[in-house]
Amino acid sequence: MTSAKPTLAVVGATGEVGSVLLRLLATRDDLWGEVRLVASARSAGHRLTVRGEDVEVVAIAPEVFDGVDIAIFDVPDDVSEHWAPVAVERGAVVIDNAVTLRLHPDVPLVVPEVNPAQVRNRPLGIIANPNSTTLTMMDALGTLHAGWGLTALVVSSYQSASGAGHAGVERLYDELEVVAAERGLGQQPGDVRRAVEDKLGADSPFAAPLALNVVPWVGSSAGEGWTTEEHKVRDETRKILGLPDLRIAVTCVRVPVVTAHSLAVHATFERAVPVDEARQALVEAPSVVVLDDLVTGELPTPADVVGSDPTFVGRLRQSWDDPRSLEMFVCGDNLRKGAALNALQIAELVAAEPG
Amino acid sequence: MTSAKPTLAVVGATGEVGSVLLRLLATRDDLWGEVRLVASARSAGHRLTVRGEDVEVVAIAPEVFDGVDIAIFDVPDDVSEHWAPVAVERGAVVIDNAVTLRLHPDVPLVVPEVNPAQVRNRPLGIIANPNSTTLTMMDALGTLHAGWGLTALVVSSYQSASGAGHAGVERLYDELEVVAAERGLGQQPGDVRRAVEDKLGADSPFAAPLALNVVPWVGSSAGEGWTTEEHKVRDETRKILGLPDLRIAVTCVRVPVVTAHSLAVHATFERAVPVDEARQALVEAPSVVVLDDLVTGELPTPADVVGSDPTFVGRLRQSWDDPRSLEMFVCGDNLRKGAALNALQIAELVAAEPG
Repeated sequence: MTSAKPTLAVVGATGEVGSVLLRLLATRDDLWGEVRLVASARSAGHRLTVRGEDVEVVAIAPEVFDGVDIAIFDVPDDVSEHWAPVAVERGAVVIDNAVTLRLHPDVPLVVPEVNPAQVRNRPLGIIANPNSTTLTMMDALGTLHAGWGLTALVVSSYQSASGAGHAGVERLYDELEVVAAERGLGQQPGDVRRAVEDKLGADSPFAAPLALNVVPWVGSSAGEGWTTEEHKVRDETRKILGLPDLRIAVTCVRVPVVTAHSLAVHATFERAVPVDEARQALVEAPSVVVLDDLVTGELPTPADVVGSDPTFVGRLRQSWDDPRSLEMFVCGDNLRKGAALNALQIAELVAAEPG
Repeated sequence: MTSAKPTLAVVGATGEVGSVLLRLLATRDDLWGEVRLVASARSAGHRLTVRGEDVEVVAIAPEVFDGVDIAIFDVPDDVSEHWAPVAVERGAVVIDNAVTLRLHPDVPLVVPEVNPAQVRNRPLGIIANPNSTTLTMMDALGTLHAGWGLTALVVSSYQSASGAGHAGVERLYDELEVVAAERGLGQQPGDVRRAVEDKLGADSPFAAPLALNVVPWVGSSAGEGWTTEEHKVRDETRKILGLPDLRIAVTCVRVPVVTAHSLAVHATFERAVPVDEARQALVEAPSVVVLDDLVTGELPTPADVVGSDPTFVGRLRQSWDDPRSLEMFVCGDNLRKGAALNALQIAELVAAEPG
């Protein structure tokens, strides 16, 4: 980077993740010169607040990347696939939240607390930002892996509606209004489904009603009974930790929470993990907050931690039948550490590179 | 049993499980002569419908058990501890839903589809009914264990509010009304908690707000970070399957669902389990319904299966990294198979014994 403050482009500035990214910019060290807001032609001309200033959104085009040092993309995968190389060609380093290149051998997949050195290894000029579910546990897992050597994971998720974007959040709020208006639903087969579909129709971002329900399906079919979301958690966890043969089992489930994902994690290590040492390592990790005081009833829950940056860990305990395994419950904001914050942290790493 | 139709006492007839039991009696073969309804003195005199007839609830007392062949108890643990032996002394076989005696070596813990022969082994005259979370997966697990020999389990639960009784259900409905009235909650730290506690107070059957949230805490502290609920799932699963050394890890989580528990299960067996053979075994199990058609989007969800008797299994798949392991998502009504139905099935087994 040059010695002048670098220019940052936020591509997808009007989306769910883009909005959070703009709010985060006001709370972090002000590394940036210009912050350029880019979106589809449909959103061009809108004005958004960035660091207290009013900024106009511009329509995506090759020339909007001229003079941009770093561009964070949070747009549909196909949009990213087309435009990220254009931004690189115009001189930007791209941080891409799309799934397309996350597993590409020439694209680093970075969690700044876990594998920061990987940002330098970007022959295509693109750094990938991981999936939000993977990111929810990665700070905590990276910390424990550094201490004891991870060998296997069994993960069950409790994923929020905002993982399906603005449409997911609106659908959950709409469904909640329907079920709250008719007290007594949820006790007869399918009564929630009938009430919700009568009022709102069956067309939903979720595979089943989400209010008063949980839905064991996130993403789309990846064959043999697995979902794309479950594949992402496996493949990205392996790549980030540099453990291509890590044994992982994942079940992804959507729950009626607005924002913040939670994960029940059963983690096995190379050697015995004294739970007090694991707890101390997590307490010392700068980006992890341990909420685990059973006397005061202190626990992480998604509705309590939403809107904050750290990874929250609770219910930490030694497995009953294996001194090498730990159980824990992890919560984190899927729009912050799970998306916008991690992307911005990567951008900050790149901006700090010697010029 | 004598050749006359036996007399059944339902102790705790006015409770959440008792009510379901009375409804179930109308749907099953009519094995019973008299059905006597028993509850605390506070509920005595109430009239309830049993098999289409109006029956008066009587206050618990030693003489109410005179002439009773089988008594199903669903009452607080201490009430059961006092009164179950009284019922036995008066000649009844007791089926007890309390936790107190479930692990007692002289008390069988029975799931009729899994270990029906155990009902005969009741030196104290008491048969225990398992915990609802354990029961949610037991039909499916028993089927797979019979085929392939279970060696290890990792289970994460998605448990409904009615597991905390009537008070739990009412609290969830109250909280839903609060959060539905203020669209936009669940995006700022603790805003759900503030809204709910402002309107309803902090005194709740749950360790945190349940609406727009999940709460990784069910039961009370059992030491070393574990909950009593998690211990029940481990200990009872081992006892029912006759596998005292089965490796189990469990995380129990409450979700904003009215009734029907769900479990994400990672199960490991003695030998490789071809997933098609496992599916076929589950399809053939009389009490299990497989809902697992990814083409039509067929999945088990708690709001769809509530109010029905079977165990519903979906998301069945071979683990990626271990041919001996399967993943599945299991749903079942915690008041039916998870409590009242299993108890009634045990009663029917006892009633069918040769006189």
